[in-house]
Amino acid sequence: TTNHRIALIPGDGIGNEVIPAARRVLDAVAARHGLGFTYETFDWSCERYLSQGAMMPEDGLDRLRGHDAILLGAVGYPGVPDHVSLWGLLIPIRRGFQQYVNLRPIRVFEGVPSPLRGAGPGDVDLVVVRENVEGEYGEIGGRLGRGLPEEMAVQEAVFTRKGVTRVLDYAFSLAERRGGRLTSATKSNGIVHTMPFWDELVAERAAAHPEVAWDQEHIDALAAKFVLDPQRFDVVVASNLFGDILSDLAAAVAGSIGIAPAANLNPERDFPSMFEPVHGSAPDIAGRGIANPLGAIWSAAMLLDHLGHPEAATRVTDAIATVLAKTPVRTPDLGGTATTED
Amino acid sequence: TTNHRIALIPGDGIGNEVIPAARRVLDAVAARHGLGFTYETFDWSCERYLSQGAMMPEDGLDRLRGHDAILLGAVGYPGVPDHVSLWGLLIPIRRGFQQYVNLRPIRVFEGVPSPLRGAGPGDVDLVVVRENVEGEYGEIGGRLGRGLPEEMAVQEAVFTRKGVTRVLDYAFSLAERRGGRLTSATKSNGIVHTMPFWDELVAERAAAHPEVAWDQEHIDALAAKFVLDPQRFDVVVASNLFGDILSDLAAAVAGSIGIAPAANLNPERDFPSMFEPVHGSAPDIAGRGIANPLGAIWSAAMLLDHLGHPEAATRVTDAIATVLAKTPVRTPDLGGTATTED
Ligand SMILES: CC(C)[C@H](C(=O)O)[C@@H](O)C(=O)O
Ligand SMILES: CC(C)[C@H](C(=O)O)[C@@H](O)C(=O)O
Repeated sequence: TTNHRIALIPGDGIGNEVIPAARRVLDAVAARHGLGFTYETFDWSCERYLSQGAMMPEDGLDRLRGHDAILLGAVGYPGVPDHVSLWGLLIPIRRGFQQYVNLRPIRVFEGVPSPLRGAGPGDVDLVVVRENVEGEYGEIGGRLGRGLPEEMAVQEAVFTRKGVTRVLDYAFSLAERRGGRLTSATKSNGIVHTMPFWDELVAERAAAHPEVAWDQEHIDALAAKFVLDPQRFDVVVASNLFGDILSDLAAAVAGSIGIAPAANLNPERDFPSMFEPVHGSAPDIAGRGIANPLGAIWSAAMLLDHLGHPEAATRVTDAIATVLAKTPVRTPDLGGTATTED
Repeated sequence: TTNHRIALIPGDGIGNEVIPAARRVLDAVAARHGLGFTYETFDWSCERYLSQGAMMPEDGLDRLRGHDAILLGAVGYPGVPDHVSLWGLLIPIRRGFQQYVNLRPIRVFEGVPSPLRGAGPGDVDLVVVRENVEGEYGEIGGRLGRGLPEEMAVQEAVFTRKGVTRVLDYAFSLAERRGGRLTSATKSNGIVHTMPFWDELVAERAAAHPEVAWDQEHIDALAAKFVLDPQRFDVVVASNLFGDILSDLAAAVAGSIGIAPAANLNPERDFPSMFEPVHGSAPDIAGRGIANPLGAIWSAAMLLDHLGHPEAATRVTDAIATVLAKTPVRTPDLGGTATTED
């Protein structure tokens, strides 16, 4: 047996319901594929913040460092401002562990109708590759003249050659492996310093991957095309903010945010990577046992793939597809009456 | 007769086809509503840039200043970088004339099927109010270490109390007039300086407009909801970048970018306002006489409304609705075979 150490951070709300479900799936897979998982569970969350003043301990990253991967549920809690909960846990892990690729596959499954008339099962099968550690999200900036009529806030977006190049290379290689095409999200017509730089680097990396067909679209037009013609996309590479928007949008196009998974990857494996469903902590339904576990389970499949077990991973995604196509088991977000446990 | 001086800037590509069509509609309306229009046409465009080195003359804004309104087609031309064409014409006009509101109404018309299964005629009727002169689009920023491994680009987003407050007040007043609701687009969980400031100002202006029900959504979730449940939105207020993305997305949800109009408003009327279809110059179909003129015609209706002729404006939008609902006349982008002229 290959043994892997997995850090579980259920977090808040339905995170505490979907992570145990994903763990059961991992254990079932382990039994059949000769794998072993040792779990350590961390109670890092908004609840911890409210009682102890911090989302995670000061040496949080050190405690995670020895694990092979992290499975995160969701963070967020009414009364705790989002920028506290996220910048106190999720974002420090992404950045501290150089998880510079946020990978978000989107598929239309049989049994989960897309809200789009024209999108049937198998039609949409794309991956958003989102830059995950720099760009528009940052701590550089601040306020001037608080409360005065002249008050202003500034926010600096920082794009580095190194940071952009590495995520582009990942995306081009992925497009190559998939035998597909790459689309770059830009906005160089409006955002005149960082986005033309992004475009230049895309052209540079494209030259280094001549076998990949590629194009680019401004984010406004691209968002529209995700609705008008999602079939045409394969690998879509985008900055931190644009990737965030496009991946939620694509998950909606596929009919459900509850199923969408994400992998925060450190491709060099210098640090553990982190896997988390795209959905949030959903305080409105938390505690009722009706959260959709498929986002967490698909995230666990991505974890298996990252740890070198692609067959086990495929077995899990095939199981998701089978349940959706061949059984009526569906949580309420998909119009069913099943529980998370079901 | 009330006489109005209108500046026409057809611009590039299909701008030269749709502006004459909109002008014919204005003239027809003028005859029936006792209005008079005097037009002055400006050849400012990428073609001008290629022959004379600038999109418009240095005193361009001065030449426009005496007009009551500006009707713009589209700018953009293969070979002229977008940031040249746009920052040389469109954006200087928006900013120089303090057109700080970009108003983009979106409707699902009978006869133009939405790509969404669940959206029928009349279901979706929303307005995106986009901040139009500051925010994420700006000239502050630059490059360091060009060509070096350490190269980086930075871009500063600037949000001012004055700039945000005025567009919010416009949006809240509009929601009040429509008897509707307001949704604010934010991303204060990721963009931690400017977006929490935006949220604070929204809460402040909401307190000043207690009769308007409002909420806020992060841009990623909001983009998803535009697809999953567009019916629920009425007035959506957003920053420059977010409004750009949401309005294209909403136009796609309504089934056509070719119909969507935009008004760049200076609500104080210190300067002329500018009206332009959302679509671009579409070099691929330019010159063939098949461009959809409805975006330009609806923009002309918004111009009429702004100049104090709401009945004439409604007459035009009613005519658009009638043509789409009761006749087969449709340009190829809507699946028909009609010409712009038809
Ligand atoms: C062309 C571009 C700069 C412009 C914008 O983003 O403002 C366009 O997309 C629009 O929406 O008018
Ligand atoms: C919660 C938020 C900061 C986060 C992001 O935007 O990165 C989330 O939307 C996501 O996509 O993981």
